[in-house]
Amino acid sequence: MDYTFSNRISGLAPSAIREILKATSLPGIIPLAAGNPAPDAFPVEEVREITAKLLAERPTDCLQYGVTEGYEPLRSFLAADCKQRLGLGEAFDTLIVTSGAQQVMDLACKALCNEGDTVLSESPSFIGSLNTFRSYGVKLRGVPMRPDGMDIDVLEELLKTEPKVRFIYTIPNYQNPTGWTASLEKRKAIYALALKYNVLILEDNPYGELRYAGEALPSIKSFDKEGIVIYAGSLSKVLSPGIRVGYTLAPAPIIAKMTVGKQASDVHTSMLSQQIVYAWLTGYDTAAHIRKIREIYTNKLNIMTDALAAYCPALHFEKPLGGLFLWCSLPAGLDAVDFASAAVAEKVAVVPGNAFAVEGDAHRDAVRLNFSTPTNEQLRQGIEILGGVLQKAGE
Amino acid sequence: MDYTFSNRISGLAPSAIREILKATSLPGIIPLAAGNPAPDAFPVEEVREITAKLLAERPTDCLQYGVTEGYEPLRSFLAADCKQRLGLGEAFDTLIVTSGAQQVMDLACKALCNEGDTVLSESPSFIGSLNTFRSYGVKLRGVPMRPDGMDIDVLEELLKTEPKVRFIYTIPNYQNPTGWTASLEKRKAIYALALKYNVLILEDNPYGELRYAGEALPSIKSFDKEGIVIYAGSLSKVLSPGIRVGYTLAPAPIIAKMTVGKQASDVHTSMLSQQIVYAWLTGYDTAAHIRKIREIYTNKLNIMTDALAAYCPALHFEKPLGGLFLWCSLPAGLDAVDFASAAVAEKVAVVPGNAFAVEGDAHRDAVRLNFSTPTNEQLRQGIEILGGVLQKAGE
Repeated sequence: MDYTFSNRISGLAPSAIREILKATSLPGIIPLAAGNPAPDAFPVEEVREITAKLLAERPTDCLQYGVTEGYEPLRSFLAADCKQRLGLGEAFDTLIVTSGAQQVMDLACKALCNEGDTVLSESPSFIGSLNTFRSYGVKLRGVPMRPDGMDIDVLEELLKTEPKVRFIYTIPNYQNPTGWTASLEKRKAIYALALKYNVLILEDNPYGELRYAGEALPSIKSFDKEGIVIYAGSLSKVLSPGIRVGYTLAPAPIIAKMTVGKQASDVHTSMLSQQIVYAWLTGYDTAAHIRKIREIYTNKLNIMTDALAAYCPALHFEKPLGGLFLWCSLPAGLDAVDFASAAVAEKVAVVPGNAFAVEGDAHRDAVRLNFSTPTNEQLRQGIEILGGVLQKAGE
Repeated sequence: MDYTFSNRISGLAPSAIREILKATSLPGIIPLAAGNPAPDAFPVEEVREITAKLLAERPTDCLQYGVTEGYEPLRSFLAADCKQRLGLGEAFDTLIVTSGAQQVMDLACKALCNEGDTVLSESPSFIGSLNTFRSYGVKLRGVPMRPDGMDIDVLEELLKTEPKVRFIYTIPNYQNPTGWTASLEKRKAIYALALKYNVLILEDNPYGELRYAGEALPSIKSFDKEGIVIYAGSLSKVLSPGIRVGYTLAPAPIIAKMTVGKQASDVHTSMLSQQIVYAWLTGYDTAAHIRKIREIYTNKLNIMTDALAAYCPALHFEKPLGGLFLWCSLPAGLDAVDFASAAVAEKVAVVPGNAFAVEGDAHRDAVRLNFSTPTNEQLRQGIEILGGVLQKAGE
């Protein structure tokens, strides 16, 4: 049979990241391309204890169907935590649990976007979200990313000229792939522009807890008195990505439509996963755990930047204040795809910048490096090898 | 702000079933409206043992990111099991793990359907799947359901006349909501017609293992030498619905596009859930467990049909050979919504037939009863109350 596919899926290639992830699981490859938490960053003992207790005391709550909105005590806890600890959420907002934060991007598009509508995104940006947007047939327009957040002038120009802009997608903290953080001024400017042009904001904050320097800045959602921000949170980077638990906090009418969408997508998020998350958040010293992972990643980041200074002086980067990634500009004339290919031949995986392009084949002048997945020894060795690749390229 | 939603979501009301599920969780309501497994049908001891072992021996495999296609050993096991035990799958087929079988319907639409394309479905049919189809803006056309499967003449007429039919949706075993089973002849006829009109089949088989009488009939997928059947399987009814694990077996080009769609939807299915399923399928006597649940449900079905004979002689039904549901025709002149409302006032929840209509407001002459969720005592009591409601209506 000759299969015909939908327009939305026909244009969408498999995520380069996930293809690269597959390659990095090959033995002997040093994984600077992935974005996995370090294995020693999982609270394994705590999850073991929680799960034993849950399955002894309330197994049916873990194994039976649940409601689409999520496990009610978990929803309440997360909403209260957002409000008290982060200053997020007004009376008009509601929170639902999702199957990872990726599903927030999916449900936002499902609820808001018709084919041909426009989404504005920092460029470069997270390939997973970009592909979700593409899977809804939206038109993506890129706003250049700067070390202090997206270019506000370009943002306003696009808001003025693009028809049917549904939302602005932004990762203000330790952005993927750049590692850059939006300044307070830019956060306020993005909010003001969205309000002025009657456009929503989709604020994605997977890395917010992973701060290694400086002071935490308020989320854009914390300014939201007008009900224009959809906030996406995740347990993937602080507890576990494998159990797939995220959440979204947004105005109730939007959440109502996202819930209908989620019902049609996967009915509800794993109850076992939700029960584990709730028990962990309410019964353990999560702040201590987050301090521990911050220490692990601060150390890994320092190992990477020290090694880059020693072995790769030709690479330029802004040291990130948090997150999992570091964005390196290549020396003039060196192509990112050529560099990544040469690196893989030497058993080091990195992601060429164009994988994160919002439009066209941009960002071939940079690569993304991840410092959370490799061991400390792999970090040093990987960067040393990249130094060799650079030297060869310079010959 | 005045929110504008996508066309696809604007027309989609929350699933009546899930709204009713919420109502049935109110204390004191006898739940004949749900579709939950009986709590004593969960292999709780086994899941407890498996999870303790997994989190002691291989915690990272449960907590770390996985690949979109699913945990490789689970995929291989399920594919081999489909082939050996059920005769499903040719060399051109591939299997991926999904977040429950509902996601198979979602991914099939994502991969195959543009807005305005047509999907043919048995009518009445499972509201969850119908709403998924609707969420992609497809045009739904209903093929009347009969006690031996869908009306083949109407199916062919629609295949002849409807433009852009992408697939035929069918639940051949113990259909939801009717409980009816497609005969072998009808299964073959559906396959032959799909082939003749160059249309795919989406075969949904969540209840296949729950047979209480008669011999198992081959799945339509078992005839599929031409690569036209997408098969959806589920662990929800034999192990647990709460952990959200299903799978799909379909021709590799279709699976490739569904995988791209899944990547954009939720990245992958909970690794902890997948590890539990794999350990259970490979380490335990699942056949014995399925025999046990069949006994529990056979008994519940008999309690319900005995009670119906005693208290509700005016209700007509075909006793199902398996599954979780029984479809009752109401006496002439009695409206299903009125009857369901009167029943809820007496603390018994049932679903009016029109909730399962593929088009318009059909099936207001019947209600769906579920016998898996209530306790045995609730079953007897609930049906006795329905008898009283019928008598009052007849006054």
